Amino acid sequence: MAYIARDGGVVTLINVFTVSPEDQKRLVDLLVRATEEVVSRQPGYVSANVHESFDGARVTNYAQWRSREDFEAIFRDPEVVAHMREAERIAVSYEPYLYKVAYTHKAG
Amino acid sequence: MAYIARDGGVVTLINVFTVSPEDQKRLVDLLVRATEEVVSRQPGYVSANVHESFDGARVTNYAQWRSREDFEAIFRDPEVVAHMREAERIAVSYEPYLYKVAYTHKAG
Repeated sequence: MAYIARDGGVVTLINVFTVSPEDQKRLVDLLVRATEEVVSRQPGYVSANVHESFDGARVTNYAQWRSREDFEAIFRDPEVVAHMREAERIAVSYEPYLYKVAYTHKAG
Repeated sequence: MAYIARDGGVVTLINVFTVSPEDQKRLVDLLVRATEEVVSRQPGYVSANVHESFDGARVTNYAQWRSREDFEAIFRDPEVVAHMREAERIAVSYEPYLYKVAYTHKAG
C-alpha cells in the first residue's frame, strides 16, 4: 500500500504503456516480475503500483523513488535495462514522466 | 492523503495532460479549483491528486472514485463540463483512462 502526499519525501514516476488488449495481462505480469526480481532491489526504491485500464489499452505504473538521482541511476543496471527492453517489445509505446505531487484532496 | 491498494474499493482515473511548460502552473491551479469547487461535491468522489512533471510538459491527475458509474455520471453536471472545457483550452491534449489496481509493492 502506497501513500500519495505532498512533501512525502518521494519523486513519482508515472509511466503509461499503450498496449493491444490481448497483451495487457502479459505486460502486467512482466512489470510485476521486474519489480520483484530487480527494481525493488535498487537503492532509493519506495513503491511500485501497476494499474490496468478497464478497456485493455493501457497499463500504468505509478512508482515512487526517494530522489530523481536514485531513479535515473537504475538504468545503469543491465538487468533493469533488459526488463525495459522486454516491456518495449510487448507495448506499442510508453511515456514515462517524473513528477512531484502538487496537490492532494480527499473526500471529507 | 490518498492510498493505493488492491481491493481498495475504488476505481482510478489517471488523466495525463500534455501542456506547454509556461501553462503548467495555470493548469494545476485550474484542476485544484475544479476539485474544490465542483468535482469533490459529486457522489462517489474519493480523492484527487495532481502531479506536475519536473520537465514542465505534463500534469497528471490521479483520482479515485467509488465506481465507474459514479465517475461517468459527473459529466452530466454542466459545471464539471465547463471546467473540462477550460482545461482543454489550456492543455495541448489529455488522455484520461479508468483503471483498476492490479498490483502493489512496497520497499520492505
